[in-house]
Amino acid sequence: MPDAPRTPFVEALHARMEALGTAVCMGIDPRPHAHPTTHPDRFGGDGAQVAKAVTAYHRAQLEAAADHLACVKFQAAFFERLGIPGWIALAQLLVDAKALGLPAILDAKRGDVGSTAEAYADAYLRDGPFAADALTLNPYLGMDALEPFVATAEAEGRGVFVLVRTSNPGGADLQDLAVAGDGSVADRVADLLTARAREGPLDARGYGPVGAVVGGTHPDALARARARLPHAILLVPGYGAQGATAEDVAAAFDARGGGAIVAASRSLTHAGGDDPRESARAAAAAMQHALRDAVRARGA
Amino acid sequence: MPDAPRTPFVEALHARMEALGTAVCMGIDPRPHAHPTTHPDRFGGDGAQVAKAVTAYHRAQLEAAADHLACVKFQAAFFERLGIPGWIALAQLLVDAKALGLPAILDAKRGDVGSTAEAYADAYLRDGPFAADALTLNPYLGMDALEPFVATAEAEGRGVFVLVRTSNPGGADLQDLAVAGDGSVADRVADLLTARAREGPLDARGYGPVGAVVGGTHPDALARARARLPHAILLVPGYGAQGATAEDVAAAFDARGGGAIVAASRSLTHAGGDDPRESARAAAAAMQHALRDAVRARGA
Repeated sequence: MPDAPRTPFVEALHARMEALGTAVCMGIDPRPHAHPTTHPDRFGGDGAQVAKAVTAYHRAQLEAAADHLACVKFQAAFFERLGIPGWIALAQLLVDAKALGLPAILDAKRGDVGSTAEAYADAYLRDGPFAADALTLNPYLGMDALEPFVATAEAEGRGVFVLVRTSNPGGADLQDLAVAGDGSVADRVADLLTARAREGPLDARGYGPVGAVVGGTHPDALARARARLPHAILLVPGYGAQGATAEDVAAAFDARGGGAIVAASRSLTHAGGDDPRESARAAAAAMQHALRDAVRARGA
Repeated sequence: MPDAPRTPFVEALHARMEALGTAVCMGIDPRPHAHPTTHPDRFGGDGAQVAKAVTAYHRAQLEAAADHLACVKFQAAFFERLGIPGWIALAQLLVDAKALGLPAILDAKRGDVGSTAEAYADAYLRDGPFAADALTLNPYLGMDALEPFVATAEAEGRGVFVLVRTSNPGGADLQDLAVAGDGSVADRVADLLTARAREGPLDARGYGPVGAVVGGTHPDALARARARLPHAILLVPGYGAQGATAEDVAAAFDARGGGAIVAASRSLTHAGGDDPRESARAAAAAMQHALRDAVRARGA
């Protein structure tokens, strides 16, 4: 009888990545105006009908593309903009992801102190209609503010992804500041996360529930983060529409081709073509293969 | 005929502060378990009834205490934890605040890049059921990530409050790091905010829609922030239950006794006593007078 998983989210994610040979994370950022079938004009602006159409649009894409996906990432902001119907859409798509066996990350970039952090962790990392397998977090408030999230993720077998270096140009404003002594602010965040990860459970390969977000548009930052964050799955945004290539993001992976997932949203879910399902499937497959080739070329 | 306000949120806030002689910001952080009238056991765990009771509890407190309040701050996490009924409660309390003439801050500490930041700004800074007069933001992603929020606040006559130095001990992890060259990370954030404020509208006293959050538990940090952020209303958490006194927070105010609001949650809304309305009113009045005395003593 195998041991119980010590870090269920990470182990399930890696198992799926190996079984399917993919590191693609489909980003679901509902933009109703971006497709005729979900356009508010079609529904006279009725928000509930728009949200229902958005749910159907993305559900069909998840079903069509699932075999090419390591996981799915829901961007909270786009659901929140749709109000209550948006929250219902999010709850329904979380159920759909679960039915497909797709680990689900809620990209909400939350962060607050003490009992407020606990309230967010309760909302998104404990069983309930909005529970995800992992949640993205903002580290600006410090490690004591992250702790309620990390502790909940550990207790619930879930995960967190903490922002280290983001993919936008302005990410440099704070994250790249040189700290007196050594390294950048982002390096300091990475080191604090690594220290915390070592206090918690790690799987057989050394990964734990404390992941990190590192943008794919800065390959140097990615290589630094990979080295400084040996226990963190890296969630890498910036692929596709934001400009990062498969070669750019290859540095995020470990020697076995694991330890990283690469997110793309618009280039998968609004890839053009007549059929959004087939477009999403084809785009996910192409991204899967591009990533695999780039990671192999780097390892060779 | 007076000129149209250039920064409607700031001008309305200052007008109310002067008319009533108060800088108290009542923090509404719904904790259903904290009072018998809202306790989930009373409703067999029915979340909709719990949220309804929470709404009634805090509405009554706002009505009772309004004359002592400069504004109200709703902590998003505690509403989000209640799920859909929590969002309905938030929408209803935002309507209540408006009916009372109380400027409402949504303390959601959001932050993301590009079109995602726009989605959050649309949700909380444009007219709609969850529109607040101002929104709290996290600066870790840099100024280009804050820009959609600031631009929306300017266009809509609303405001933002950006985290600079938070009141928790771990705030030091990043915010107090010494930056090569000069000052701390928090100082750098303050300077970037001041530069951005100078590009936008300012009222007759020099205040604009870009406010800042600076914890009250660090009087030195508060004095530094006041000096570095001449155009920012300071939102000061940490009073009361978190340990800051009226004397500690007096440094947040300008020479005219304006430019800052001081938030307290538990010490106002769960002040004990038989009647939560009267307890909230009395606690708000006591805090109003303590702040006024401390600011006067400092100016004398």
